[in-house]
Amino acid sequence: MRNLKLTLQYDGTNYIGWQRQPSGTSIQEVVEQALAPIEGRPVTAHGAGRTDAGAHALAQVASVTLEASLETHTLGRALNAVLPEDVRVITIEAMPAGFHARFSATGKTYEYRIVNAAFVDAFLFRYVWHVPQKLDIEAMGAAAAPLVGQHDFAAFQGNPEGSVVHSTVRRVESIEWEAGGGYNEPLVMRITGEGFLRHMVRNIAGTLVEVGVGRWDYRRPGEVLASRNRALAGPTAPARGLFLVNVRY
Amino acid sequence: MRNLKLTLQYDGTNYIGWQRQPSGTSIQEVVEQALAPIEGRPVTAHGAGRTDAGAHALAQVASVTLEASLETHTLGRALNAVLPEDVRVITIEAMPAGFHARFSATGKTYEYRIVNAAFVDAFLFRYVWHVPQKLDIEAMGAAAAPLVGQHDFAAFQGNPEGSVVHSTVRRVESIEWEAGGGYNEPLVMRITGEGFLRHMVRNIAGTLVEVGVGRWDYRRPGEVLASRNRALAGPTAPARGLFLVNVRY
Repeated sequence: MRNLKLTLQYDGTNYIGWQRQPSGTSIQEVVEQALAPIEGRPVTAHGAGRTDAGAHALAQVASVTLEASLETHTLGRALNAVLPEDVRVITIEAMPAGFHARFSATGKTYEYRIVNAAFVDAFLFRYVWHVPQKLDIEAMGAAAAPLVGQHDFAAFQGNPEGSVVHSTVRRVESIEWEAGGGYNEPLVMRITGEGFLRHMVRNIAGTLVEVGVGRWDYRRPGEVLASRNRALAGPTAPARGLFLVNVRY
Repeated sequence: MRNLKLTLQYDGTNYIGWQRQPSGTSIQEVVEQALAPIEGRPVTAHGAGRTDAGAHALAQVASVTLEASLETHTLGRALNAVLPEDVRVITIEAMPAGFHARFSATGKTYEYRIVNAAFVDAFLFRYVWHVPQKLDIEAMGAAAAPLVGQHDFAAFQGNPEGSVVHSTVRRVESIEWEAGGGYNEPLVMRITGEGFLRHMVRNIAGTLVEVGVGRWDYRRPGEVLASRNRALAGPTAPARGLFLVNVRY
């Protein structure tokens, strides 16, 4: 038996997210379905984390335990030959037995991409949030500062939908805003932390954009954080602008 | 009445091409349907040229004659608000009465995009042809040289499907190959000419790739041209890699 680390990329537009659900197609399901005939039995792929329906990944990580003895390079080619074109295996690495995509992860980086222009390019609409009002990137940077560090992020947690979260305290290591270059080149919010609550990145993005368009003072997101009251935070930014870009081990 | 020049961008994945057809959705149809309620009557949008089902445009041009007195800027915003997200109006310009998107055009530039790597990025598959075998870009450049100039391109014409083409002579002004930079950055064939036969760009790309992968000697495309025999040309490259990038007036 080998323990393998799969790094995956996906366009989440047509999926209900990483995790299997009673209805809809998940990335986990298509990855497991691609692995099963190679292994000759059902295989479970453990993802580093759920991603939301419609959200994307440049580098999701999944761990699988396989008996099949294919070389990792050959296995990657075999998987890419049967996976749908919107899900790709980038790399496969052999790992020590104890490695687990979720439990071994020490941090994650997400990017939230926004087109801040009159219209969104016909080739980009699946991957960005369209905010036509001029965004003040410096104000968004200032508004993000108090969110960095270890805090109770209850105000930025999505509806837990019955899931048990023992604590809403998380450590955010950095939040950076990067201006897009040319027209339609997305403005990016890059956020790194040890872990994130459900919808936390999208709620932070939606809240900071309230500041960016000038509806909110730059101090208000810090006050919302301190309130621990979800009702005070800004709207949840659309899933299509969200990318999981790195999982740290 | 104003004569307007609309420059349009589209992701052709879900369309049967620019031109209206008995079945399937065309770009022309969605543009005309967006214009009709603004004008209060049916409107005909004349395109600079058909584009194939599944092919894309960075800058297709359409001409329309409108009574509606909206400013061009306002009209563009109104159209983008109702058009599907994969079709965008980039610019609208008022033109002299004689301007016609098709008859006034003096040339067109297309790009054909190829990913020459083991796999195609999950975000790129709609816009490229995947050729995993290593392509020899210098050989493709040498093979393209005899196609430049005024020639009878009968060997590179797609099935005319009953359309009457008076002549298969066309003038190709340039064919350039440009290497992609990073991994998955597409290799591009850029071709400019006064006009093109049906499937001509895709047949030229498919033929030059036969040279690029080493199956054909670099001299063979020139011989195929001279033969005027379609049966001798290479395969038709997939529509998804084709972009109309400029119409010259």
